[in-house]
Amino acid sequence: MQADIKIVLVNTTHSGNIGGVARAMKNMGLADLVLVAPKSFPSDEASARAAGADDILSAATLVDSLQQAIAGCRLVFATSARERHIPWPIMDPREMAAVISTVDKDAGSGAVAIVFGREDRGLTNEELHLCQHHVCIPSVSGFSSLNIAAAVQVIAYEIRMASLTDVSAQAPQWGTSWDVPLAEQQELELMFEHFESTMVKTGFLDPENPRQFMTRLRRLIMRALPDKIEVNILRGMLTSITKTIGSTKK
Amino acid sequence: MQADIKIVLVNTTHSGNIGGVARAMKNMGLADLVLVAPKSFPSDEASARAAGADDILSAATLVDSLQQAIAGCRLVFATSARERHIPWPIMDPREMAAVISTVDKDAGSGAVAIVFGREDRGLTNEELHLCQHHVCIPSVSGFSSLNIAAAVQVIAYEIRMASLTDVSAQAPQWGTSWDVPLAEQQELELMFEHFESTMVKTGFLDPENPRQFMTRLRRLIMRALPDKIEVNILRGMLTSITKTIGSTKK
Repeated sequence: MQADIKIVLVNTTHSGNIGGVARAMKNMGLADLVLVAPKSFPSDEASARAAGADDILSAATLVDSLQQAIAGCRLVFATSARERHIPWPIMDPREMAAVISTVDKDAGSGAVAIVFGREDRGLTNEELHLCQHHVCIPSVSGFSSLNIAAAVQVIAYEIRMASLTDVSAQAPQWGTSWDVPLAEQQELELMFEHFESTMVKTGFLDPENPRQFMTRLRRLIMRALPDKIEVNILRGMLTSITKTIGSTKK
Repeated sequence: MQADIKIVLVNTTHSGNIGGVARAMKNMGLADLVLVAPKSFPSDEASARAAGADDILSAATLVDSLQQAIAGCRLVFATSARERHIPWPIMDPREMAAVISTVDKDAGSGAVAIVFGREDRGLTNEELHLCQHHVCIPSVSGFSSLNIAAAVQVIAYEIRMASLTDVSAQAPQWGTSWDVPLAEQQELELMFEHFESTMVKTGFLDPENPRQFMTRLRRLIMRALPDKIEVNILRGMLTSITKTIGSTKK
């Protein structure tokens, strides 16, 4: 899905930012960087900020105009922080990512471009009007301008999130593969009985007036969905309590 | 909703990154920056990269340890790129934002902290285990480490997106309004110390060979996000154990 997405930077002034953009792209699995008349490229600052994404920099395409950069693209988004005089269809980055993945599925592969403007004044109206959609990162009014590498990071992140969606629907419990199978219901019940009898022995639980102890303990432990080792640990702990009490009582 | 969210940076090395973080925060409406023993602060590089977010920098809190930074927090997220030996519940930034807004609605206001580690090697296992949940930005394996300002940008963006949308539909948590405020981080730590000392007394925990007991117990209890009454109950239970052992030993 992410095969054919170009990140296009127009007239970037600070070379370090180009490196920051390359790093953000590579972090999120994007590879195709197009530079429209950057002030300076290649540069040491760009390589330093790229922090290992040098392959993106060396594969970058240099062109003279935005028209050249997007000529073969089917879907072109301009990023913009400002409200324009003539309103343009605006999406947030999540909607943009959804459109990209839909179009990609529906219409086969083909280039998508996402265009980022100058650090100080963004894209001109003419440039904005070359693009089908405007994407706006919902920043705070009064301090709305993101660093360009930070903006690319957010956009690339949303594209990646969209590409992972199908996978994440089948994802297990806590977003990571767990090390141990979850405990079975019966194991939990035995553990709670063990808790109860032990707490009666320590005097914490008065069988005549149990109040809400077991209910709250259940709610706490069950909502964590304990695994088998965790249940064994808790039961080991309870056994050690009983033994200590027993042996000292002899 | 975003009133009380702390961004905590641990041992940041490059001053410019602190400025980049401040800018990203301000863009997204966050204001509370906590610096744990940064290499250098304040600095010209930080102010330059802040690009106008100087107010965030001058209001930043400096502390010596992560414990201090998160002591009063009810909900602590650690950002992490690495898979750990013992898996910890992992959320992506979107799930994190949904949890933050849900918990905030349900349990009244109180500080939330999101912790970011060192540029070169992230957070230590000890630091990670102080945090209830781990948040992982789904970067590409093999090039997974984001610039710290870029990572803050993504996290802050998701919090802002959640604040602008009704995320209650995706809210994973407990599907009901809660009865008791969640425990603060410091209360949890005191409880874990109490567990540890008690289990040494019962002989369950060998201080010379603790194995993974405390890590697994932490993981179990923290992923349930315990509330204040639950913590009190567990501590009452521990106190009753100590008393019983003490009295029978006399």
